[in-house]
Amino acid sequence: MEIDFGKSGGLVPAIVQDETSGDVLMLGFMNVHSYQETRRLGEVVFFSRSRNKLWKKGESSGHVLKVRDIRVDCDADALLIRVEPIGPGVCHEGYRSCFFRSLDQDGEWRVNAERRFAPEDVYRAPAPLGEGK
Amino acid sequence: MEIDFGKSGGLVPAIVQDETSGDVLMLGFMNVHSYQETRRLGEVVFFSRSRNKLWKKGESSGHVLKVRDIRVDCDADALLIRVEPIGPGVCHEGYRSCFFRSLDQDGEWRVNAERRFAPEDVYRAPAPLGEGK
Repeated sequence: MEIDFGKSGGLVPAIVQDETSGDVLMLGFMNVHSYQETRRLGEVVFFSRSRNKLWKKGESSGHVLKVRDIRVDCDADALLIRVEPIGPGVCHEGYRSCFFRSLDQDGEWRVNAERRFAPEDVYRAPAPLGEGK
Repeated sequence: MEIDFGKSGGLVPAIVQDETSGDVLMLGFMNVHSYQETRRLGEVVFFSRSRNKLWKKGESSGHVLKVRDIRVDCDADALLIRVEPIGPGVCHEGYRSCFFRSLDQDGEWRVNAERRFAPEDVYRAPAPLGEGK
């Protein structure tokens, strides 16, 4: 069974989940090279669509994602990477998860978590644009 | 804050997570119309890339996904839908989650879960091609 990188221009979505808590931390994209690098390093490497190059998560922040389990879906066109996240959070806005906003009953996005770190202490200038996704 | 449907031809990836267990069940795509229908119905409606139309999850199987929480990521280009799944599983191959294969140490995909239902009892002919994602 081969991962189907053909459906979205060579990219598949890769969900990152905290293996211990079960929290979904972020979603990135992988091409075949970033997938191979992820396996080789044992740490998550995405393909940055905005920068058009490989992007090792944590390369600027130090908040790397240690790979514990790689799963593929039935159609082989999406990945679920279960990880041990290093550091207080994966989000460049200072949260543990990038999914820190929930829709409330009024249709507004509300923050559902507490900030874990100050982005300016972690990311050096120039400010990362979503750290690159 | 508006969801950014512009990056992938009008689609954003939507992760479906079981609210109770934390298990990631599947990943689909939504366009703005499927997102609106998801909100209106309180049940997950994807956009099927293969069939090029809206696809309400469970429309053939009855295994609908009741929406409990909708989250958006920091870049507003990915959704996390936390659900109560109705029925024994979301996967058209008979598993609770579509992510039922894990990479083993030999680099082979191994089934990591037990089949919950017989697809032929649930899906009527013609056989669904991945139910449409």
